[in-house]
Amino acid sequence: MKTDLSSITLPKGFLAAGGTFGIKASGKPDLALIASEVDCTLAAVFTTNRIASEPVILGRRHVAGGICRAIVCNSGNANAATGAEGLANALAMCKAVARHLKCKPTQVLAGSTGIIGHPLPMRKILPGIDALAGKLSRGSKADGAAALAIMTTDLVPKAAFVRFKIGSRVVTLGGICKGSGMIAPNMATMLGYITTDAAISRPALRAALRAAVDADGSFNRLSVDQHTSCSDTVAVLASGLAGNPRITSTRSAAYRAFAAALAELCRKLAYQIICDGEGVTRIIRATVSGAATQADAVKAARAVVDSPLVKCAVHGGDPNWGRIVTAAGYSGAKIAPLTTTLQIGPVTVYHKGQPTNYNLEHVQKAMRGKEVHFHLTIGKGPGRTQFLGCDLSRDYITINADYHT
Amino acid sequence: MKTDLSSITLPKGFLAAGGTFGIKASGKPDLALIASEVDCTLAAVFTTNRIASEPVILGRRHVAGGICRAIVCNSGNANAATGAEGLANALAMCKAVARHLKCKPTQVLAGSTGIIGHPLPMRKILPGIDALAGKLSRGSKADGAAALAIMTTDLVPKAAFVRFKIGSRVVTLGGICKGSGMIAPNMATMLGYITTDAAISRPALRAALRAAVDADGSFNRLSVDQHTSCSDTVAVLASGLAGNPRITSTRSAAYRAFAAALAELCRKLAYQIICDGEGVTRIIRATVSGAATQADAVKAARAVVDSPLVKCAVHGGDPNWGRIVTAAGYSGAKIAPLTTTLQIGPVTVYHKGQPTNYNLEHVQKAMRGKEVHFHLTIGKGPGRTQFLGCDLSRDYITINADYHT
Repeated sequence: MKTDLSSITLPKGFLAAGGTFGIKASGKPDLALIASEVDCTLAAVFTTNRIASEPVILGRRHVAGGICRAIVCNSGNANAATGAEGLANALAMCKAVARHLKCKPTQVLAGSTGIIGHPLPMRKILPGIDALAGKLSRGSKADGAAALAIMTTDLVPKAAFVRFKIGSRVVTLGGICKGSGMIAPNMATMLGYITTDAAISRPALRAALRAAVDADGSFNRLSVDQHTSCSDTVAVLASGLAGNPRITSTRSAAYRAFAAALAELCRKLAYQIICDGEGVTRIIRATVSGAATQADAVKAARAVVDSPLVKCAVHGGDPNWGRIVTAAGYSGAKIAPLTTTLQIGPVTVYHKGQPTNYNLEHVQKAMRGKEVHFHLTIGKGPGRTQFLGCDLSRDYITINADYHT
Repeated sequence: MKTDLSSITLPKGFLAAGGTFGIKASGKPDLALIASEVDCTLAAVFTTNRIASEPVILGRRHVAGGICRAIVCNSGNANAATGAEGLANALAMCKAVARHLKCKPTQVLAGSTGIIGHPLPMRKILPGIDALAGKLSRGSKADGAAALAIMTTDLVPKAAFVRFKIGSRVVTLGGICKGSGMIAPNMATMLGYITTDAAISRPALRAALRAAVDADGSFNRLSVDQHTSCSDTVAVLASGLAGNPRITSTRSAAYRAFAAALAELCRKLAYQIICDGEGVTRIIRATVSGAATQADAVKAARAVVDSPLVKCAVHGGDPNWGRIVTAAGYSGAKIAPLTTTLQIGPVTVYHKGQPTNYNLEHVQKAMRGKEVHFHLTIGKGPGRTQFLGCDLSRDYITINADYHT
């Protein structure tokens, strides 16, 4: 486990806390609070699952206000598929936080993760919020407590930060996230909470977040098990306390530097998710290039990392490359054998519709590393992406056949 | 194992043979031949995978002729992703059969199934065809030999027949098929070879086949592992020897009877495939109704049976129904919580966006049968379908992580 989880309270203006309040039967930490001392500009992306969780439904409304003071999130119960009662409970969480911070309930985002379809234990959550509000603090201990409290089947807490300069001003971004199973973010992502002290306008922050979650190897470019959650959320809060000239134009150098830093942070967090995927023993990094469009590249790459047959081949370290090519073939992306080439690690195994005379030992070696690289060229178009996936192991089944309701 | 495999030579005019020619390293049967004594009307559907196998590419051309005398199929090697050499080899198989039957090579369909990306061992296949041509016969032994010879990871051979009457004439349909892994037929299917002695026009035969593979619980409504193969094929040969008045209109009673019989045969064969899915311990039967369109119903049902989380829950006999609802939620089908209801077996667990006060023991019992039934209502539209799926077990991983190239 990482010992230094410095992240969300590194940017100026933020405080955090996490603790254990009996929401989880396991007795592990289950409630986190992130708060800002000042009004923050807010941007967030949510799941595309049409059965969105009740905190997501409420969160979409609160994001419309554009200002945020706090995020409160419990684990152990997703408050999803819970209907009107669930929506009222999510709002009650926001209200409890707002009372302590003297802000409006609409300036609070609530998140929940865990089992679907069960009412939240509000008698545990509301006192928990009161307790956490009294011990908000700064530093890696507070960051780690929050990161631990949002975990479900995660084995390790996930946190990262990035620093860069705008002129003489140091801008800091920090983030925590969780996710191990039910991970296939699609135009949204799993729970990721990011803070920054950058001064930045809301449209610029939104643009940077959208680009960052869609970046190669970022949240929208990874899949543990293709099951897009109903709770996926990434939110970024910008306090503006770094003192940089406020970023407003997405064409400015400062915007580009901020967007690059945010994408780097998202990639760091996303990589921690795939490494901690349920039952994972090997990571897949699948690059698709030459696609007619970027959407086609994403379709093909997603199909490759989601194919149970590809995942099993990677688990067995077996260069059964026909599975990779045919997964792209059924993805819906435009692809024809004569323009298709596949490299596994450094070895070209399939070239323009024909198997090559590759050295089997070299391919086996490439298939048996901790990280397995596929590069599939499916035409001569400009579409390109890089996706993260993982193998499928017996442990994934053990975890998910025995995760009892 | 079924002892009576009576099937493809039950209809008048057909002969079959199967044998072992060293194509498979295991020494199991690996070459099948089905022949007709007269020219047959032919209809076939093939994979929608854009990386189609070379026998599929050739088969599409041969089907255009509309007349067929024979099907030859080897297992142990898919002759897929093999380029120009693979196409020439598939044609050489057709030519070898045509020489024996004194027909045109275009009147023969070739099929191959097994490992992808390796050249066919023609020095074993061509003598094999010569040997089989000499021992074509009728009866359940011949049918069983053919059914065995097209198997790959299948544990049991798959065969079925259906009989019905048109006036005083008995019409017979027989079929064999194979499939266990890489099974997610999509607008096409795995290898299925069907014979009938019905007299029927080509357009009517094509219409009946298309409807039959798309019927509830038929080939296009099942998935073992979502990986649509590059070799999927269902072909039906009609000899016309039953003596019924030739069926030409798809509005006639005789057509409806034939189409119903063909759909029944396809369902019987498809059910044998799902029962023999790799590592399967439980079958999922997922009905989706109330969808805006049939396409939406298919999307939702497919997502449910393909979700690794749903499959693991079924494996564990765990009524974790949130996974079922959210799988439909990310399927792309139009769905909203307020119009969504889920039954597991006889028990309604989720009703119009709210969990019900269901009896947990009753749901657990429904989840622990040999066949688990989900009925998901996702709106008030006319779209409806029934899909077959299966659980995900450690054995699936063992089979596919160790299926070495």
